Amino acid sequence: MSKYQQRTEKIFSRINELATITEEPGMVTRTFGSDAFIEASQKVFQWMNDAGLKTRIDNIGNVRGLLKSSVEDAKTLIIASHIDSVVNAGKFDGPLGLLTGLDVIEQVIREKLQLPFHILLIAFSDEEGVRFHTTYLGSKVIAGSFDSILLGKQDKDGITLKDVIQKIGGDTDLLQQDALDHNNLIGYFELHIEQGPVLYEADIPVAVVTAIAGQKRVELIFTGVAGHAGTVPMNMRQDALCCAAECITSIEEFALTYKADIVATVGKLDISNAASNVVPGLVKCTLDIRSADEVRLTFACNAMQNIIEEICEDRNIGFQWNLIQETAPVTCSPILTNQLEQSIQATGYKVIQLVSGAGHDAVPMSAVCPVSMMFIRCFKGISHNPDENVELKDVSAAIEIAEHFVQNIASTYNQ
Amino acid sequence: MSKYQQRTEKIFSRINELATITEEPGMVTRTFGSDAFIEASQKVFQWMNDAGLKTRIDNIGNVRGLLKSSVEDAKTLIIASHIDSVVNAGKFDGPLGLLTGLDVIEQVIREKLQLPFHILLIAFSDEEGVRFHTTYLGSKVIAGSFDSILLGKQDKDGITLKDVIQKIGGDTDLLQQDALDHNNLIGYFELHIEQGPVLYEADIPVAVVTAIAGQKRVELIFTGVAGHAGTVPMNMRQDALCCAAECITSIEEFALTYKADIVATVGKLDISNAASNVVPGLVKCTLDIRSADEVRLTFACNAMQNIIEEICEDRNIGFQWNLIQETAPVTCSPILTNQLEQSIQATGYKVIQLVSGAGHDAVPMSAVCPVSMMFIRCFKGISHNPDENVELKDVSAAIEIAEHFVQNIASTYNQ
Repeated sequence: MSKYQQRTEKIFSRINELATITEEPGMVTRTFGSDAFIEASQKVFQWMNDAGLKTRIDNIGNVRGLLKSSVEDAKTLIIASHIDSVVNAGKFDGPLGLLTGLDVIEQVIREKLQLPFHILLIAFSDEEGVRFHTTYLGSKVIAGSFDSILLGKQDKDGITLKDVIQKIGGDTDLLQQDALDHNNLIGYFELHIEQGPVLYEADIPVAVVTAIAGQKRVELIFTGVAGHAGTVPMNMRQDALCCAAECITSIEEFALTYKADIVATVGKLDISNAASNVVPGLVKCTLDIRSADEVRLTFACNAMQNIIEEICEDRNIGFQWNLIQETAPVTCSPILTNQLEQSIQATGYKVIQLVSGAGHDAVPMSAVCPVSMMFIRCFKGISHNPDENVELKDVSAAIEIAEHFVQNIASTYNQ
Repeated sequence: MSKYQQRTEKIFSRINELATITEEPGMVTRTFGSDAFIEASQKVFQWMNDAGLKTRIDNIGNVRGLLKSSVEDAKTLIIASHIDSVVNAGKFDGPLGLLTGLDVIEQVIREKLQLPFHILLIAFSDEEGVRFHTTYLGSKVIAGSFDSILLGKQDKDGITLKDVIQKIGGDTDLLQQDALDHNNLIGYFELHIEQGPVLYEADIPVAVVTAIAGQKRVELIFTGVAGHAGTVPMNMRQDALCCAAECITSIEEFALTYKADIVATVGKLDISNAASNVVPGLVKCTLDIRSADEVRLTFACNAMQNIIEEICEDRNIGFQWNLIQETAPVTCSPILTNQLEQSIQATGYKVIQLVSGAGHDAVPMSAVCPVSMMFIRCFKGISHNPDENVELKDVSAAIEIAEHFVQNIASTYNQ
């Protein structure tokens, strides 16, 4: 560990410095386009520039630092993560991947390694999508899949995305030109905290990500009959909450049966005109189902819908299943993932494969190049929370693996 | 029916007139002490006075009309219901009982019946308790159980109960003196809509009430661990909502097993920091358990607590059971109830006994005299709602029975 200690400490010191740049003192909040966001972008620009990268901020606010290869017609390996955050976030989600990437590149420069490809380090501007309820604005511009219809979208104060892009110095007419040429990309690598408890519980520092789960988000509406809690006998009730409760229990049971493949969560539940002395007449809740396997995701979704419909029919409760949003699963590049596993083994760590249940910028990037991701253990799996934490020794491991991985790609590329 | 049609229509016309006196145009809302409440009290005062009753408004705002008996040292039979309402109420809940009572008394006067007791008609001022989250302010003053500590209680605008009593012309120093002398009371009779679906489903116009259910209101707090809906595997979750859902299903199952004796309702459920992509970490809900039998109420309450605690232990979920409020069941006077049943039979209707799951002014009155109640069928059991409705023919039946009941008491009293 001592070999990497100094570098790890520098990464942590930069993470801490970024964490002080926030919209709200006392917490880490850095949403797209805020003054704190702009200040953080400039800080990252300065670090990249100081490292000797050819640095610029593009029109959607991504900070891009290029380490050019001396090889003629070299292609590009992207290393990236994001610098925006949720409200009252942890300090590692995003910055850890970016600044570990910067460290690895600085080491390449220090050691004067000649790589057969350029490395483009990107600090994505909007991964969390908090301000405009969007997904991956930064990486979609890079991937050429940004939809300009979003420019009219307003934040809670009525400010449009177009206004914000202009405020941060972007030109909305040039967003299409900011896309990278797919043909020149070797691949994409992102290092990120796990945001789940698996590595923490298994006491392992890192994992390779084999896929990013697809997701279906559904609104469930249960319509019963409201009544007086004292005067309607139990056998004459059409209690929408009791019905929803039975469905939630069945959803959990189903998901536990298929736990290797899916997760399912009811995160919100609202009773209309709720009162302690009123039998609930109308209940709405959300259902979030994720799987790395599209076939199983669809199977699980259909099965759950059938189970719920049967329960509602038995209880004489009206039911609506409204699909709100769906994203397809993304499979990480088998070649890159295999090389990453080799690097983990070569540096003496145990290889563990994980599916990412959370979305990442690798999702839009997967449409234009092979993608790979490595997770780093986080304390108790806590994320999007000030208690988010990462151990120094795990980051040392990640540096060592990432460094090996870059050289591994380089050696394969040469062959 | 024709014999009572004109009288029934007059009752409905008065109910409709009262319904126009409201805080909010287009709905019936008449909470304690509002301008609409004061106007309604004056209207009722005028009707009682016009009928020839010795009428006054007491210090808590009850309107009292006395029909004096010519018998020396006569005692008093109370006929009563309330004139306050919930927000966006139905028009029958309260006024139906009061105005049917007034009609019966008017008939006694018209027929110059000599009764061996006084009849005191009371329009209670605050049964619903909406404004101050209290119970039975009007009848507690009558029963001598009003607690003066309540005078400092504030409504949502910071106005105290004392202020409101003064606004309606009451003197808070005289509240104790407004209590009736227990020794001079024969009994209490209230006629009220059922507020439940039993009579409607059974197609029967009226029921005798044998008891008013006792109630325990409990707050349930489930403490799990919040997590990311995508990254925490199903078998590593401590989902507070899934736990609450299993408990709600078990509560329902238990209550269905003992449906002849209890009802149990979870009416409110709140997930802290709920989001569709977050595993619920903290859930609070309400549990309302009612029974006419104190032993069974306590048994059900303890059994449910045990069931929930076991589920929470199995799931490693923290649990708190906070008893918020409890009222003991009230048994109606067997003698009066029996006489009421005789009157129902004598007028040709089927006798059906019901327990009142809702509370009524008969609860505080039961501490000072024998109480009796009769329920009238309401449309589909709907109450506390603009759709609350009652059929003319059922009110005709109620008049006939009530009249017979008063004479039945008189004849027994004479013996």
